[in-house]
Amino acid sequence: MEKKKIIIKEVGPRDGFQMEKAIIPTEDKIRIIDRLSESGISKIQFTAFMHPKAVPNMADAERLCREIRRAPGVAYQALIANQKGYERAVAAGVEEVEFTLSATESHNKSNVNTTTEESFKRIEDCLKLGERTRIAGGVAVAFGCPFEGRPPVERLDWIVENFRGLGIREVTMADTAGVGDPRQVYAVFSHLLEKYPDMSYCFHPHNTHGTAFANTLAAIQAGVTMVDTSAAGLGGCPFSPGASGNLATEDLADILENMGYETGIRLDVVLDAGRMIREVVGHSDSATLKSGRLSDLFQGAVPVQHNH
Amino acid sequence: MEKKKIIIKEVGPRDGFQMEKAIIPTEDKIRIIDRLSESGISKIQFTAFMHPKAVPNMADAERLCREIRRAPGVAYQALIANQKGYERAVAAGVEEVEFTLSATESHNKSNVNTTTEESFKRIEDCLKLGERTRIAGGVAVAFGCPFEGRPPVERLDWIVENFRGLGIREVTMADTAGVGDPRQVYAVFSHLLEKYPDMSYCFHPHNTHGTAFANTLAAIQAGVTMVDTSAAGLGGCPFSPGASGNLATEDLADILENMGYETGIRLDVVLDAGRMIREVVGHSDSATLKSGRLSDLFQGAVPVQHNH
Repeated sequence: MEKKKIIIKEVGPRDGFQMEKAIIPTEDKIRIIDRLSESGISKIQFTAFMHPKAVPNMADAERLCREIRRAPGVAYQALIANQKGYERAVAAGVEEVEFTLSATESHNKSNVNTTTEESFKRIEDCLKLGERTRIAGGVAVAFGCPFEGRPPVERLDWIVENFRGLGIREVTMADTAGVGDPRQVYAVFSHLLEKYPDMSYCFHPHNTHGTAFANTLAAIQAGVTMVDTSAAGLGGCPFSPGASGNLATEDLADILENMGYETGIRLDVVLDAGRMIREVVGHSDSATLKSGRLSDLFQGAVPVQHNH
Repeated sequence: MEKKKIIIKEVGPRDGFQMEKAIIPTEDKIRIIDRLSESGISKIQFTAFMHPKAVPNMADAERLCREIRRAPGVAYQALIANQKGYERAVAAGVEEVEFTLSATESHNKSNVNTTTEESFKRIEDCLKLGERTRIAGGVAVAFGCPFEGRPPVERLDWIVENFRGLGIREVTMADTAGVGDPRQVYAVFSHLLEKYPDMSYCFHPHNTHGTAFANTLAAIQAGVTMVDTSAAGLGGCPFSPGASGNLATEDLADILENMGYETGIRLDVVLDAGRMIREVVGHSDSATLKSGRLSDLFQGAVPVQHNH
């Protein structure tokens, strides 16, 4: 039986690093991104083009674009939220951006200071430039917003239809606050995949309530084949003590491979990058870095016999 | 539609406290157990009858039996591993014990210094005493052993058949090392529930690899209706830095209620007990204690519309 492939998108150099209080030296970022490029991962969100005052750790986006080593077979994506970001990404030669907006008006307002409709107009303006830099969609708080709770499914439909109307076929649905539950995640993705079969989705979990892995499995069971994770489990927000990170890339790769999925990831290389990250930022949230890999434990051991 | 009921068995006063290096004052234990008794929980594993040198924090088992307040509707269970423990439990008037043994010979040897077959003989000897103290079964490392890897399903069959042959119908299957995966947990419980439909199972997860909640959902999906958790998320082993705790009672209750299951648990009371535990032992591993409850976040918010 052919193994089901799950694409893991590494977002640590963006979602992880942007949250660090201390400025991470660009040289360290380059070393880490280059090591991640060797891990068999197929997409890396390596930076964001945001205002340097708002996100100081992303101020070196242009330099990263010049100096990281681009490995064959790896797509390098940057996060943006407006036309200025798109223009910088284009000028820096970025092949793909994720244009992020929020599922709720209050979060869009608080995050990018405009309406969701205006965010879509900004995407349209970017597309009108006719540049080669591809645009993927990103939807924050798709599974629950600190201000408005869970967005109704009609709202998610409206958002997906807007992306679709602009010709954007790949959208990341993010559980930004880590408040989704597996039943909901399964229901939302099943619905969206059925209603818009020409769209493809990436799931971006956070582990605030310890549900990131269960939510990821629910997304995969619903048919999602791409998941955002972060080497060393960085992410979240150091300024709010309750926030928690992304799922660690090495943890998800380890458990998925153990369950019979194919991620294409070389765990030893991701773990090496994870150790580099831990050394640079001084912390990590990774079960594999802490407790070792399941695959080592079960090497030579009798496998369970599945009845299903 | 009637909600599906999940019974949460609180094991913090045993699995949590036994792992603490510092001796916890008996008065504090009593306060905490009494508070947990008010939480709507239906079963509490509140102590263990082990050799005090092996498990110093369980040396006050008899005094706990005398001094905790027994709430109506709550079953009070103690953990044991041999006839001496059973005799002490009987003398202390305990209504139910969980007799623990291991799925693998190497773990049974390392944990209770005998063969699994001999452990079953010990249970038989206890039953021959004809006492009123009920015996439930407990199976450590049922989903993976640090020495032998994953026990084959025939081995689990053999263990369940032994319990069944002794008239024991309730068995806790423990992922002691936290190395099970959801596909395996689902397969094992589906198999056991189909093959031995007169048995009932409890699942005891550990979160070493961040999989405790996903494994718990897999167990529930397979038909398991009882889960071991620990208020404040204590558990694991403070002597091995890689080990991680049980799932926090408040986290599981919060997310399950949010998903539409019924646990009967008063979250405010468990959180109160969790804060008492955190104060007494100086640490905790609880998303709800750290980040608040999902149910608060979604109060008044628009619920997701489920399509399934």
